[in-house]
Amino acid sequence: MAQRAQPVRGMRDIIPPQGELRRRVANAILDVYAGYGFETIETPALEDLQVLLGSGGGENEKLIFKVLKRGERLEEELSRGGELSDAGLRFDLTVPLARFVANHLNELPMPFKVAHIAPVWRGERPARGRFREFVQCDIDIVGEPSMAAEVELCGATLDALERIGVTGATVKLNDRRLLRAVVEHYLGPLEDPAPVFIELDKLERDGPQRVARQLRDFGPAGVAGLLEWMGEGDPSSGPAEVAAELKKTLSALSEQGYSAAFDPALVRGIGYYTGQIFEIRRPDIPYSLAGGGRYDGMTARFGAPSLPMCGFSIGFERVCDLVDPEAFGPGQRRVAVTCASEDELLRCLAAARAKRAAGQDAVFSVLRRARNMRKQQEDLQRLGYSEILDGKDFVRPQ
Amino acid sequence: MAQRAQPVRGMRDIIPPQGELRRRVANAILDVYAGYGFETIETPALEDLQVLLGSGGGENEKLIFKVLKRGERLEEELSRGGELSDAGLRFDLTVPLARFVANHLNELPMPFKVAHIAPVWRGERPARGRFREFVQCDIDIVGEPSMAAEVELCGATLDALERIGVTGATVKLNDRRLLRAVVEHYLGPLEDPAPVFIELDKLERDGPQRVARQLRDFGPAGVAGLLEWMGEGDPSSGPAEVAAELKKTLSALSEQGYSAAFDPALVRGIGYYTGQIFEIRRPDIPYSLAGGGRYDGMTARFGAPSLPMCGFSIGFERVCDLVDPEAFGPGQRRVAVTCASEDELLRCLAAARAKRAAGQDAVFSVLRRARNMRKQQEDLQRLGYSEILDGKDFVRPQ
Repeated sequence: MAQRAQPVRGMRDIIPPQGELRRRVANAILDVYAGYGFETIETPALEDLQVLLGSGGGENEKLIFKVLKRGERLEEELSRGGELSDAGLRFDLTVPLARFVANHLNELPMPFKVAHIAPVWRGERPARGRFREFVQCDIDIVGEPSMAAEVELCGATLDALERIGVTGATVKLNDRRLLRAVVEHYLGPLEDPAPVFIELDKLERDGPQRVARQLRDFGPAGVAGLLEWMGEGDPSSGPAEVAAELKKTLSALSEQGYSAAFDPALVRGIGYYTGQIFEIRRPDIPYSLAGGGRYDGMTARFGAPSLPMCGFSIGFERVCDLVDPEAFGPGQRRVAVTCASEDELLRCLAAARAKRAAGQDAVFSVLRRARNMRKQQEDLQRLGYSEILDGKDFVRPQ
Repeated sequence: MAQRAQPVRGMRDIIPPQGELRRRVANAILDVYAGYGFETIETPALEDLQVLLGSGGGENEKLIFKVLKRGERLEEELSRGGELSDAGLRFDLTVPLARFVANHLNELPMPFKVAHIAPVWRGERPARGRFREFVQCDIDIVGEPSMAAEVELCGATLDALERIGVTGATVKLNDRRLLRAVVEHYLGPLEDPAPVFIELDKLERDGPQRVARQLRDFGPAGVAGLLEWMGEGDPSSGPAEVAAELKKTLSALSEQGYSAAFDPALVRGIGYYTGQIFEIRRPDIPYSLAGGGRYDGMTARFGAPSLPMCGFSIGFERVCDLVDPEAFGPGQRRVAVTCASEDELLRCLAAARAKRAAGQDAVFSVLRRARNMRKQQEDLQRLGYSEILDGKDFVRPQ
């Protein structure tokens, strides 16, 4: 019996012309980041489970794809009921970056400005528009304690979006220190506010009634006050220096001509943030295009000094969906040359090579003429071939 | 206790400036392939195990990283001693491509020329220069039955290598149909020659004595004759049409100015090849830079028609090692601006933004001045910053 041809559940293939579009979009974003001095790095898809677990990754830690131990080690674990896995696919690029920085501290400039684009994996319940493999495009600044890092990250991310034609976007800002103060004001002192943040992060998706139900153990009055604050609160509810930093970040962004605003309802569902958090929104789109924040000290988990860290991550698929394929298409002339025989193919391949060697900057795609010529022509036109030539004409001297 | 900061065993981090170099090299290769009309696709890192196993992947199938089933399904399998995994990380891009083509047959042009660059994973014993995660850069032609496909693939791959400065390379050619005829001539009829091919593929690495020992069950005379043929045999030992095709491929490549030669010792350790096989070699390097061949009919495993398929895969890390970083570096002027305070950082970020907006095509990297200025300057120079300015001078009106 034939194997099924579909991809693994919840993942997907990228067919032409999307693949080339994605390459162009990724390069445009990385070119902007390179212009700011963010250095590209790569980390492995797999990380030790000890790196991924207990990292403050919130619910994402429950969604890790774990990799089986191999060979004798697996047999041994099975026989004694031990751990079957010691590595997993990364669920974000932030935790691997902290490990990376700790591992290469002496080889990196400091402060270190870093760009990282790569797939991440989360075993979420598959749903429309939600995939178990998706690409994140991150920039981070390691070693800058002040809000100048936040300003640079927000500006560079908005610039990158503008470069790919995604305009009209706004940075929404909040601060975890402010949120913690507000949460504790309304709900009482908390040893770890992360579980409350995870619930509050679902406010937009699930609505206030459902969130209030999840938090009912804290008592209805406090929860009601908290949810009301998230509707119209302002930074003055928190420590004065946090309010001052938020104000300074917002005015620096606005002085540079960016759109930015405080958003009391911005929480983010990740545990590791320690200061300002931010997202990029566009009024016409019901989800964020990018998200990030400050997560000082994550390097300390890996035996390195506790460094200031701050990062911003673009959801690559989400922004690709907004790119205009026409405006972002290949600028080159595209010529398809269809041939009737092996010998004609060989002659046309040689002619195409000669044209390239002579400096002609065009795509020359030589291929056999299909039996269903009309379908072939339609397919080629869809892929941007405005000229479709007969092989005989292509090799004829001009 | 701190977690270890090293990557997973056998995998590695890419630190600056290698990351940017790799991006430039990948784009240069893909630009050449795009100029030939190869369309970029992507497939998921994970494939169903049924796709990967029994695919003719040879020893690579033993090296698959398998992913644990999740939640209740895992509990159930553990309790009844069932299969713990139903998906794994791909070990090459060829098997996923066959699945991809079967899955999207109606959405693809045919013939279909496809480019695919992505990491693959193999749980090999870690060794110097051998990693468990590495990048392959493949081109394939689906739907072209003649050796014109082989000629185009070999030419495009050599062009791509030349574009990144890897010159002096030669295509080595052989044919699995010829090899099968020769093997059966010396060893007798075989139901499946794949295990013999896997042994013969180790000839260069392990030497003739060790290979002969592995094949001793076939009798010493036959094995000796076979190994002798692999030293100096020629295509006339096989079917006439196979010899004619090899000759035609070689002469077409040489007419286009490429270096290509028949190599009786070229076998390749993969089971799925059905016709011509090829590698790219350079005399000064003891391993191949690229490998490929024809694998007609792999789509039939996935319920699609049996299509002609042929592909060539560049070992990305191997060619990156040969690239001259100087010749392939960024062309842009690189300016680092070091600042003493948060306020100076903000002023310089705004000034850098203004210069970019005014069309200045340079990298402006604004960052805090480190306490150890000498180390910071050395690090920045290593990353290509030939100008390092004081923030005060950067914002001063010219």
